[in-house]
Amino acid sequence: MVRFVDVANMTKWIAEQGVEPIITGMVDYLERDFLRWESFDKTSRVPSHSPSGVIELMPTSDDETYAFKYVNGHPLNPSNGFQTVTAFGVLANVSNGYPTFWSEMTLLTALRTGATSAMVAKLLARPGATTMALIGAGTQSEFQALAFRAILGITRLRIWDTDPAAIEKFVRNVEPLGFDVVVATDARDAVRGADIVTTCTADKANATILTADMIEPGMHLNAIGGDCPGKTELDAEILRRGTVFVEFPPQTRIEGEIQQLEADSPITEIWQVLAGQAAGRTSAEQVTVFDSVGFAIEDFSALRYVRDAVDGTRFFEEVDLIANPVNPKDLFGLVAAAVPALV
Amino acid sequence: MVRFVDVANMTKWIAEQGVEPIITGMVDYLERDFLRWESFDKTSRVPSHSPSGVIELMPTSDDETYAFKYVNGHPLNPSNGFQTVTAFGVLANVSNGYPTFWSEMTLLTALRTGATSAMVAKLLARPGATTMALIGAGTQSEFQALAFRAILGITRLRIWDTDPAAIEKFVRNVEPLGFDVVVATDARDAVRGADIVTTCTADKANATILTADMIEPGMHLNAIGGDCPGKTELDAEILRRGTVFVEFPPQTRIEGEIQQLEADSPITEIWQVLAGQAAGRTSAEQVTVFDSVGFAIEDFSALRYVRDAVDGTRFFEEVDLIANPVNPKDLFGLVAAAVPALV
Repeated sequence: MVRFVDVANMTKWIAEQGVEPIITGMVDYLERDFLRWESFDKTSRVPSHSPSGVIELMPTSDDETYAFKYVNGHPLNPSNGFQTVTAFGVLANVSNGYPTFWSEMTLLTALRTGATSAMVAKLLARPGATTMALIGAGTQSEFQALAFRAILGITRLRIWDTDPAAIEKFVRNVEPLGFDVVVATDARDAVRGADIVTTCTADKANATILTADMIEPGMHLNAIGGDCPGKTELDAEILRRGTVFVEFPPQTRIEGEIQQLEADSPITEIWQVLAGQAAGRTSAEQVTVFDSVGFAIEDFSALRYVRDAVDGTRFFEEVDLIANPVNPKDLFGLVAAAVPALV
Repeated sequence: MVRFVDVANMTKWIAEQGVEPIITGMVDYLERDFLRWESFDKTSRVPSHSPSGVIELMPTSDDETYAFKYVNGHPLNPSNGFQTVTAFGVLANVSNGYPTFWSEMTLLTALRTGATSAMVAKLLARPGATTMALIGAGTQSEFQALAFRAILGITRLRIWDTDPAAIEKFVRNVEPLGFDVVVATDARDAVRGADIVTTCTADKANATILTADMIEPGMHLNAIGGDCPGKTELDAEILRRGTVFVEFPPQTRIEGEIQQLEADSPITEIWQVLAGQAAGRTSAEQVTVFDSVGFAIEDFSALRYVRDAVDGTRFFEEVDLIANPVNPKDLFGLVAAAVPALV
C-alpha cells in the first residue's frame, strides 16, 4: 500500500502544526539536501506547453529515493475560478522502483516555495533586514510572508498587486497574524526602502514588474514569478547590475529571468553559497537577485519532510496503487482469481 | 475531485469485462490515436537509472488531454518477491492543467502492451497466421496470448522460458482458456515453424534470445523485452535481414533493439503503415520485426479507454487531490479556515 496525503489531510496537518514551524522544519531538510546537491540525479523539468499554460513533470533522485512532482501553470485560470498552479507528487524506492508515498502538492508547493525563498534570503539579504516588498498578492503571497518571518524575522510588509481584491484578501489574511502591512500605491512605491523585494506575479508574458531605477543599493530580490520561456518579471538591466543566484543552471537558463541575457551571463549556484564554495553577498551595497524557478530537489525535500512528519499521525490514508501478486511473475493470476472461467 | 481506479477496482473491472473484449476495445482507441500521431506532443520518456533498474516518466498530450505514466523496470525484482514492472498514470485537462483521472497501470500496462503488439501484428504478420512462439513466460505472457487470439485469432502457442516454474504457471493459466500449448525444449525449438515470435524476457543485459539462423522466412517478430539502453534480445543480424518497424524513432534509437545498429539504420514508423503512408509487409517471405519499447501515446489511449469504460460503473472512487479554494487566489484561506488563530 502507498501512503496518501489528500487535500483535507494536508490542510488539517498544516493547521495543527502551523505554517511557520513547518517552514522552519522544511528549511532544515532543504539545507541538508542542497548541501549534497552533487549527489542527486538532476534533469530540467519536462514541460508540455499549450496556448493556455504549461504542465510539467519534475523528477529527481538520490541513491535511495526517487521523487517527482506534477505541476501546472495556467495564468488565466483565476479568471475562470481555477487556481494558477496545482500539483501533486510521489516518492518511490530506488532499489525496487515501487512508489511509497503520494501527496497533494498545491499547498505543499506554496510551503516549499516560501521555504526555499527564505532559506536563500537568509544567505543573501543584508543582515538586520526588517522590511519586505511583495509584488503580487496571489496564492504564494501569504506563504512568502510567513516564511520570511519564520526564517529572517521579517515583520514589515509593503504589498502591491494590480488586482485590488487580491490586495484586500492578502491584508485580511496576514494582519491578524501580527504583520505590519502597508498597501502601496504601485510597484515603485512598494519597493521603496524595502530590504527584500519578492516578485510573485503570474503573467505568462515578458512583463517588467521592476525596472532598474526602482532598485536601491543593498536590496535582495527574490524573483519567483518568472518561471517559463517567455515569462519574466524583471528588467534585464537589473540582472546586469545585480549578482544573480540560481538553482539548477540548465533549467534557469531556459525558464528564469536570465533567459533575457546571453547564454553565458555570470551566475552563482545557490547550493555552492550554502556549502561555502562560492561567495554570497560581498558588500552592504550589492544588489543580490535570486532568479528562482523552482527545482525538483525542493519538492524532493518537501515530500520527504511531509512523509516523515505525518508518520504516526492520522493525516494520511493508504491506497491500493500497486498490484501485488503472491508470485511476482503471475500478474495474470490476480485477474484469473477474480473469475475462474475468465474468457 | 479526481477519479481513481485502484488495483482492486481494475482487477474487478477486467474480470467482469474479460481480457479479450477489453483488448479489442483498446485496439480501437490505439488505432484512432496512431492515425493522428502527428497531432500529439511527443517526447522520449525521462529515465532515472540506478544499478538495480530504471524509473521512467512517459508524458504526451493532444490539444485536449495530457497523460503521463510512471513506470519502473527492475529485472531482479522477482527474485525478491517484487514485480519487474509496476506503473500508474494520470490524465489531465490541457486547458486548465487540472488532473482528472488517475489509475493503477501495472495491470493496464500489461493490457496495453498486448493490445499494441497485436494491433501491429495484424498489420505485419502473414495472413492466416495461427501459431505464436512466446519466449518469456513472465507477467506479460498471458496478456500477449489473449491479445493475439482476440485480434488475430492465434490459438496455438509454443512457450519457452529459462525458469521452469514460469512455464508451469503460464500453462496453468492459459490451458483452461482453450489454447493449444506446446512447451518447447529451448528457444530454438519454440521458434520452429511459428508464424509469429514474441520475445518478452526481462534481463537488463544485451542478451541474444534469438539468433539469425533460427528465423524462418515470413516470420513476424514481436520484440517487446528490449526497452532500455544495454537491454536487448535479438542478434543484430536479425535486424539487418528483416524489416524493422518502430513506435517513436528518437526513443527507439536509444532503447530498442536497433541501439545495436548504426544511428541511421532503415526503420519504418508503424503509424505510417497504419495510415497507408508507408509499406508494411511486402512479400510472404519477408521477415518483419516490431522493435517495440512502449510509447506514451499507447498509455494515453489505454488511460482514456479505461476512463471512458468505467464511467457510470462502480469501478472507481473519487479522491481529494486538488485543493479547491472558493477564491482561487486565496489558497491560504483553506488553512486559515481550519484554525482561526493560526500562528
